[in-house]
Amino acid sequence: MTRLVSTVKGIGRLEDDGETIAFLDVAPTDLGMALQGGLGALAKAAVRDRMPTTQVQLLAPVPRPSKIWAVGYAYADHRAEVEYNAVAQEPVVFLKAPSSVIGAGERIRFPRAAPDEVDYEGELAVVIGRRATDVTEAEAYTFVAGFTIVNDVSARDVQKGRIPGRAADVTAAKSFDTFTPMGPALVTLDEFTDPDDLRLRTWVDGELRQDARTSQLIHPVPALVSYLSRQTTLEPGDVISTGTPAGVGHKQGLFLRPGTEVRIEIEGIGALVNICA
Amino acid sequence: MTRLVSTVKGIGRLEDDGETIAFLDVAPTDLGMALQGGLGALAKAAVRDRMPTTQVQLLAPVPRPSKIWAVGYAYADHRAEVEYNAVAQEPVVFLKAPSSVIGAGERIRFPRAAPDEVDYEGELAVVIGRRATDVTEAEAYTFVAGFTIVNDVSARDVQKGRIPGRAADVTAAKSFDTFTPMGPALVTLDEFTDPDDLRLRTWVDGELRQDARTSQLIHPVPALVSYLSRQTTLEPGDVISTGTPAGVGHKQGLFLRPGTEVRIEIEGIGALVNICA
Repeated sequence: MTRLVSTVKGIGRLEDDGETIAFLDVAPTDLGMALQGGLGALAKAAVRDRMPTTQVQLLAPVPRPSKIWAVGYAYADHRAEVEYNAVAQEPVVFLKAPSSVIGAGERIRFPRAAPDEVDYEGELAVVIGRRATDVTEAEAYTFVAGFTIVNDVSARDVQKGRIPGRAADVTAAKSFDTFTPMGPALVTLDEFTDPDDLRLRTWVDGELRQDARTSQLIHPVPALVSYLSRQTTLEPGDVISTGTPAGVGHKQGLFLRPGTEVRIEIEGIGALVNICA
Repeated sequence: MTRLVSTVKGIGRLEDDGETIAFLDVAPTDLGMALQGGLGALAKAAVRDRMPTTQVQLLAPVPRPSKIWAVGYAYADHRAEVEYNAVAQEPVVFLKAPSSVIGAGERIRFPRAAPDEVDYEGELAVVIGRRATDVTEAEAYTFVAGFTIVNDVSARDVQKGRIPGRAADVTAAKSFDTFTPMGPALVTLDEFTDPDDLRLRTWVDGELRQDARTSQLIHPVPALVSYLSRQTTLEPGDVISTGTPAGVGHKQGLFLRPGTEVRIEIEGIGALVNICA
């Protein structure tokens, strides 16, 4: 269908020039709400206003998903760099708190509880369009509204149990406020010629750190949707962040610092850029 | 204030006779929505209708919390029974999926992915009333709307990594659909003489399995609210399930089976009863 955005002024569509947002004349104020009623109304909606993208603050496409499932150890090269040797055949999954979501251009903040080892992870994210329970891989894409980009920001010291008195805690490590930048747009599935093979790149302060293709995912999108629909009913607006390839910061001796810019680009979606406060 | 319920017919108040629901003349249809605007309007609301409790299907007080934080290894006697010997001083926490919530009287269903080792955990649950970020223990209760009861249902084989090809997965183990029975009422904080010392008992098919006092929590409610508010902003309607005392089924060779009834009673709140499908 199109490239949709949630903004402080309501739901919009990115025009082909890449520089204009056409605001849609619909009742829901963000895509998370719109997905509850199906995306159909958005396809038919009239345009009520246009504005340059530079003049509108984007929200995350789904500002408060009901669930954010995320996948760990999702690419072979990332498994190698973090020396993950477990034999799990099924995806390794965890939940991120919805309160951690921010939009493109918003600031990543370092938590007081763990400011020192904050790291980025560029990831393709799936947005669910219809309730899915126990669905097969073959039908999985019919439950997907589209794709966006997620930065699965992680406090490595919390994740790995390096905070004195704390057990290793992957959930808290990835759930601090501002730790799930998401956006810039929700690009509907029909926009992709091959949704299973998209180039993903991450730059930190202009330096290329991750460069992979989603065809390298150990569990491709249909497998993840099917698997997670067997763990929990997936609901409209739920997000699945599919995991990160090699090149995360802490394996290169790099952590995020005040002022650091993280730019994640995925073919056909755009660029998610966030600066650290 | 009072004992509040979410029902298929809107928000109600349990009358003192324990047998009548007074429905409130307010716009929100469940307490989760009402909490977004503060509980104040409910205190002043007129009664639009009354009905016997037996004639109304209860929902969970908050049918879809934005977050459900849950606490593991929260009582010393439970740590002993499961031989948990780690030295973490901070709470051990995880997220449960909001899609797992059901109300009092609804059926617990066994997931196809893991039907064999489904277990109960009776827990006191805290419902957040106001946004809380980095709050102290001393002020923590001012951010709490009240208490309810949660059954933190758990698939032990998934939790402990006994499913071939799967890593141990506490999140999925506790997030299957119907795995978070909650209710019957949200009892506001002012109803409790001592909110930190409530008797908690769990019966399985009429047999007493858990009998403890919440004063035995290793991290009392104010400590949990403060700690979790330093991990994530707590939002109105968020739920903290504070953990379970000794007496869980799998340590007694007992798993839930079709038709099994679990009844959890907490002093001042009532009884949460669910039967397995």
